[in-house]
This record gives sequence, structure tokens and C-alpha cells, in this order.
Amino acid sequence: MNIDKAKDFSEWYNTITKEAELCDLRYHVKGFIVFMPWSVMAMKRMYAMYEQALERNGHVPAWFPALIPESFLMKEKEHVEGFAPEVFWVTKAGLNDLEERLAMRPTSETAIYSMYSLWIHGLKDLPLKIYHSSQVWRYETKATKPFIRSREFHWIEAHDVFATEADAMAQVRQDMEMAEEVIHQKFGIPFLFFRRPQWDKFAGAVDTFAADTLLPDRRTLQLPSTHMLGQNFAKSFNVKYTDAKGEEQFCWQTTYGPAISRIYAALIATHGDERGLVLPFELAPVQVVIVPIVKAENREKVMGKCKGVEKQLVSASLRVKLDDSENSPGFKYNQWEMKGVPVRIEIGERDMESGTAMVVRRDTKEKTKIKFDSLESEIAKLPKSTLANLVSKADEWFKAQMGEADSMDALAGELEKHGFVRVPFCTDQKEGEKCADAVKEKTHANMRGSLFDSKDAPKSEKCVACGKKAEIYLYAARQY
Amino acid sequence: MNIDKAKDFSEWYNTITKEAELCDLRYHVKGFIVFMPWSVMAMKRMYAMYEQALERNGHVPAWFPALIPESFLMKEKEHVEGFAPEVFWVTKAGLNDLEERLAMRPTSETAIYSMYSLWIHGLKDLPLKIYHSSQVWRYETKATKPFIRSREFHWIEAHDVFATEADAMAQVRQDMEMAEEVIHQKFGIPFLFFRRPQWDKFAGAVDTFAADTLLPDRRTLQLPSTHMLGQNFAKSFNVKYTDAKGEEQFCWQTTYGPAISRIYAALIATHGDERGLVLPFELAPVQVVIVPIVKAENREKVMGKCKGVEKQLVSASLRVKLDDSENSPGFKYNQWEMKGVPVRIEIGERDMESGTAMVVRRDTKEKTKIKFDSLESEIAKLPKSTLANLVSKADEWFKAQMGEADSMDALAGELEKHGFVRVPFCTDQKEGEKCADAVKEKTHANMRGSLFDSKDAPKSEKCVACGKKAEIYLYAARQY
Repeated sequence: MNIDKAKDFSEWYNTITKEAELCDLRYHVKGFIVFMPWSVMAMKRMYAMYEQALERNGHVPAWFPALIPESFLMKEKEHVEGFAPEVFWVTKAGLNDLEERLAMRPTSETAIYSMYSLWIHGLKDLPLKIYHSSQVWRYETKATKPFIRSREFHWIEAHDVFATEADAMAQVRQDMEMAEEVIHQKFGIPFLFFRRPQWDKFAGAVDTFAADTLLPDRRTLQLPSTHMLGQNFAKSFNVKYTDAKGEEQFCWQTTYGPAISRIYAALIATHGDERGLVLPFELAPVQVVIVPIVKAENREKVMGKCKGVEKQLVSASLRVKLDDSENSPGFKYNQWEMKGVPVRIEIGERDMESGTAMVVRRDTKEKTKIKFDSLESEIAKLPKSTLANLVSKADEWFKAQMGEADSMDALAGELEKHGFVRVPFCTDQKEGEKCADAVKEKTHANMRGSLFDSKDAPKSEKCVACGKKAEIYLYAARQY
Repeated sequence: MNIDKAKDFSEWYNTITKEAELCDLRYHVKGFIVFMPWSVMAMKRMYAMYEQALERNGHVPAWFPALIPESFLMKEKEHVEGFAPEVFWVTKAGLNDLEERLAMRPTSETAIYSMYSLWIHGLKDLPLKIYHSSQVWRYETKATKPFIRSREFHWIEAHDVFATEADAMAQVRQDMEMAEEVIHQKFGIPFLFFRRPQWDKFAGAVDTFAADTLLPDRRTLQLPSTHMLGQNFAKSFNVKYTDAKGEEQFCWQTTYGPAISRIYAALIATHGDERGLVLPFELAPVQVVIVPIVKAENREKVMGKCKGVEKQLVSASLRVKLDDSENSPGFKYNQWEMKGVPVRIEIGERDMESGTAMVVRRDTKEKTKIKFDSLESEIAKLPKSTLANLVSKADEWFKAQMGEADSMDALAGELEKHGFVRVPFCTDQKEGEKCADAVKEKTHANMRGSLFDSKDAPKSEKCVACGKKAEIYLYAARQY
């Protein structure tokens, strides 16, 4: 396609989602898209890998209803204020008007905690750690963009309950470690965890910690967030346990929400190049494509060899496609490069004579002649080495996106060169929101929060917006 | 629990779904239940096994929107008449009234075929075989029963498109074979495929073929159905291809819908006994439970041995639970039997001295002393032998449920003794509906259709309802 993703990311992204057949935007409900097989096959694997991590860390799955009574949504005041404007409301069923209208879940806290209050009685019921893989629906008013923001998205929500604040905070850390393990180490997507300013936290939470990545245009995209809910929802929904002394206590809760469809957007954006999609080996719907180079007179012979190689690789548990269509080899190369298949094997009569096949890596575009005998063992090395290459390339670029500024003008300049710009800021408490608005107005950037666990603190610097003594370093970024 | 499932199935079923913690009926939206972890862990495996079968047979996954514009639902006349009374309608989003109301999908034909008409152009696009694992919502007016019938259910829908009627019919057969392979051979649930009478087919289909099982009270429950849609929807949604002569042709379509949550109901009902759930090895969330028999003075020693066995079995890829809670061994036996864990291993000091553990099979209740050395190899035999036992027990009972009758009175009598009763019937075309109504009124049984592929036909018999010459054998059954 020959579009430079750094120079014209939006055009590049729209082209790739269409040409690689990842989604179809022509469905007749605004903001709803069809997720096509090529993206879904990868996203199902992403779901499975994330669910495995959750289960290893003590979570079990459950399925909660898609519809939430309005009265439940109303129980936590900040929560309903945050979500009510985005709700799709069911008001009729068949020919009947419903007595109480029902929300299509925009998130499930209120559905789930109404059950938790029935399930939790004593210390033996804690911790309770449950995840639900599902869709949620939000009537977004911002511009939608496939996988990045739409009115229906595919996510996992994990809802955990603990006896103590310390246990809940340990869960927040475990949630962050899972993001590192899965999103960074397995999908190759770099990010930073920010503690969001108080004016930008999840509606109803005490604190929100969110993983922000950067897309090639250096605008930031929020990946999973984990929320310390404190006892806010426990008090609204009466989630209590009886402690060792026989006294009732409110529980401490956390919520964690990896949006798989959005992580897939980051996957496309992080690894893709001017030829199309680049996928980590483990996520690719097809891992190896075999392209026969045939003429009429040697077709049978070459195809026989190709089928042999296909069979061998399939029995080594690889997902293999032998492209025996009538298209030209060049057409096939382009097509499978666009789709991000990690390895291409070209086999023609000359290759057969020399006893080697041409093996082409999608990530490095490297071409190597490999003996048929060692094909299986050489390809077995690629999952690890392609992933390592993708991770290190992504990390290198990401690390170069960190800037610093100590004034509004310097910030505006830095935002042209870097993704995240650290600035001294008066406070990340509610009172700081005016300063954040001022930054937004002058630079179109948002204050994404402070770096989680960072000990860095301003000494004598001044807030870039109000000029008062800075208490904290916050990071500014333009966002999706 | 000591309830006989054959004598009081309803009480038995309600007790087991509660005591084994399979679901919670206390959610505050009528007809919506919460699927709890113990059932979901098994259903996720059932999904995966069904999806594997679909993929082996050439299907790929996609995700379609949950909301369907009313105008789409209206396009196929019979379809909308069948489904409109059951639709949950979204009429508002945030504070806005929607211009067109949106249906929460009761099934996805109309959403999906609007896309297929854009995706299919020529023979190279066919066959198109896509499945979507999702939830659907139907405003059921019949009494709901957990997993069997509720207003939200978890299913897979596969939507396939072909160039010819013969290809479509071959798909119907393949759908039936998949049901045999997965539901019968892997889940151990017997059923028969009936071709539904014309008055009872899927709204918009040419023909419906449905797998009917029997619950212990001999009432029948519909499991997956596969529908020959002919060209009905293709004409309504303009799903066409250009044939080899360059002429446009309407496609032939099939739909296949395994409802996983309902198949789970049949799983509970088919295999469960007076102690609770019985699960096939492959589906069990926990496959082996280890119960230590300890006294204060040997606790450490016995627990050490139990942990060793746990470690060994986990490394053999089994899902193992070492129950180290404070409950008594008897309490633990009851609890894990209720939950259907296939194998229990009891280990106490005496066992350690004799070098053996007591191994108890959930399906046969058989107790065997097995040497610690051979534990792993003996347990490795159980997945196959427990499944074989469950299948043969279920088949034996099911086969004994077939009756025959040649008059209304005889039918009423047979229905007290058998599940399916074959009767001579005038016709399974539209005109036969009056006779079916007469049967329903007198015997509370429904005409489930003719046995698929059966060559059996009445010679000189008369319809049990109208007394006219019988053209066909239909099967009557009381249904859920």
C-alpha cells in the first residue's frame, strides 16, 4: 500500500483495516462494526491468553446478564453520572412497555455487585475473583474509529473483592503485572501505567491506573485500566463480610478491564508497516503460507512437493496455508504480507533441484534459503525470534517518545517531537482540573497522570499552567 | 440430596442447579439468570470443542453487532412474524430518542445477511461458512427454567452460503454429523434428528432439522437445529453470485444453532444422579479432587503426601484440587460428588503405610485401591472409560423410550411409558397442523416431526387424529 504509518497514520490505519479484511464499517447501525474473520481469529487467541493469565492468578469465569435495571445503575452516584449519558436503553419487549427501563451494560459493576452482596458472607468467601468476557455498549459521542472506539466493544472485566485495602492494592499490582506479561511480552505492545488525575478516574473509583500506549502519530491510546474502588461500591451495594470478631465490615474492591478489540488496534498500529499487518507468530491465524512457483509443465511436481511440506508443518502443529489459487506469485506475496502472515515459503522447480526452499520472514523481510530437511527445525525457532524482534523494535521507538518540559511553551514544542511529555504540575487532585483545562486549550494535550510507582518529584519547579509551586510530575499527551 | 430424578425431575433439577452452584436465579431482571463459575468453566470447554468441530469443517469465526435495525428484521416476512413478539427493543440512547428502534438480536440472520450481500460476488467467494459465538435475547412468555429456557442464552450460530441446493443440503448433513460427534460422542447426550413439520419450522426456513433429546421425565428438549433456508433470505437480502456463464444467481443458505447453555441443561439431566452432578472427564472444571484423611498428629505427614500426588497429577496436565479446608472428609465427599468431579482420591496415614490410595469414580461410585506408583497411569485411563460408561448408560435409557401407537387412545397410553411415540399421521405439510392441535389437546404432546433419513412409511394405516389415510410416520412427545 506504500503509506508511511508515521507520516499519515490515519490513512495508513484505515487502509490496512480494509485491505487486510479486519472489519467492515458498512453495517447499518452507526458506531457498530462487523469484526471480520481475520481479526477475530487473532482476537480469540488474545482472549484465551489473557484468560489464562487471569486464571493462573486465581480468577474464575462467570456470565452476567447484558441488561441492568435502571435502579441498579443509580445506586452509585458518581457511577451513574459517568455512564448514564452513554447508555442504550431497552424500553419495550415484544409489544409491552417495560415497567422499568433496562440498560444494555456499559460496564457491569452494578449488575455484578448486586450478586456479590448475596454471595459474600464471611472471610471464607474472600478473596472473590471473577472475570467475564463479554461485549459492552456505549453511546459514544466522540468520533468512532474501528477497534479503537466504537459503540460496541469486546472486552474482559474482572471484579475482585477483598477483606482489606492492602489485599485490594496488591490486586491492582497483579493486574499491572498481567498487562506486562500478556500485552507487552506476548503481544509486543509497550505502554506505561499512569495513575490518573482525580478528575479523570473511572466513575465511582477511588483511583484509576491505566496503561497508555502510543500510536505511530504519537497520540496515546488507553489500554487496560485497573481501578481501586475502595469501599464505594461495597457501601452502595452492601457487599459485606463478618470478620474474625464477628463484626460486619465492608469489602474492598477492584475492577480490571482489558478491551481486547482495542488492544488489537494497538497491535495493528505498533507492528504494521508499509506492506500491511505484522502479527506475532502465536496470534497469527495463518503462521506459514506456502506459495508454489509453477509453470504448466511442472505444476504437478511442484504442487506435490508443496503438499508434502504443508503436511509436515501441519503435523508440527503449525497453522499452514498452501495458496493453490490461480493468482500470480507476486499477487500472493502482496496479499499474505498485507495479512501479516509471519512466514512465507516459496517453492519452485529450481528450489526442488537445489534441495532448498526460500523462506521469507514478514517482520524483517529477510530471505533465507533453507534445506527442506531443516525447514521444520528452522521454522520452530521463529515464534521466539520474531516476537523478540517485534518487542525490541516497539520498545526502542516507544522509549524515544519521552520528553520533558517546564513551561507551557516548551510543552507545546515537545509535543511535536514526543508522545509523553513530563511537566511539573500543581496537583493531581480535583483542584488541578482547571490547570489541565488550560493545558488542553493551549496544546490539545491531556494530563494522563503520574507515572505509577515513580519516586520522582519536583523540588522547586512551578506548575506549567498556574505557576504555583509544583507538587507532582504529570505526563501530558495528545490522546485518542 | 436423595431425590430420584426420574420420579421428581423438576425438584431434582432445581436442587442440583442451586446446590452445585451452577446459576443464581436472584438477578433482578425477570428471565435473566447469572451463570456461576462452576457451570461456565464447563460451558467454555463445550464452546471450544464445538468451535473446533466447526473450524475443522471449514468455518471461520466473526463477530456481528448485537443490535439490528427494525427495518432489517422486517425484510423476511415469515421471519419477522416469528420473532417480532419476542424482541427487546432499544428506543433511546443517552438522552436521545433513536430515529429507528433497534432490536437486541433474537437471532442474527438479518444482521449477517445484510453483510453477506456485500461480501459475495462470484463463485470464488463460495462456500462462505462463518460462525459467531454469542448471546441472543428473546422475550419468552413461556415459563423460564435455568439453562433450559431463559430470556438470554449463550449459543453459537453458523451461517453458511452455497452456490447450489445440493451443497446446502450437504451442509445440513454435516451439521448433523457435528452434533453426533460433539454432543453425543463427547458430551454423552443421546438425541434424534427430526425433520420438523412445516407448521413448526424456523421462521423463514424451507425446512428445519432439529436434534431432540429426552430429559428424565421423558419430556423432550430441542438441542441444535439446522435449517435449510433455500433462497428465501437470499432473495430478501439480495445475496447473489455470478455463475460461470456470467449470470446472477441467488445463493442457497443454511443456519445452524447449537445453544451451549441448553446443551449444558441436557448434560446435567442426562448424567446426574441422586448425589448430584456427573460430568464427563474432559468437561469437568476439576477432574480429580484429593481428600486428605488427617488427625492432628499426622496432619503434616499426610498433607505432604497429598501435595506430592497433586503435583504429580498437575504435571500430567490434569485439573486437580487438593481440598485442604477444615471440613470433615464426609462433608468433602458430598460436596465434590454434588459438583460432579469425576475422580476422588482419599489419602490417609493407613493408605500411606499400605502404599495405596483409595480412588473413587463419580460415575460408577466404584472404589479401588491403587498403588501410588500406578496412580497416574490408572487415572490416565479414566477419561475414556468414564465417557464410554456415560454414553452407554445414556444410550440404553434413551433407546428404551421409543414407543408406537396407532390411535389417539393408544398414543395417550404410550406417552405415559415412553418419550417418543411413533404414530401414523396424515401429513407433515401445513394442512396437518389441525391434526397436531387435536393431538396436543388430547395428549399434551407435540408432533416433533419425522425421523430424518428414515425410509419407514405407513402402508394402510390411518392418521391418529383425522382418520384419513396416513402418509407419514411422525413422532409425538411432550416437550419443554
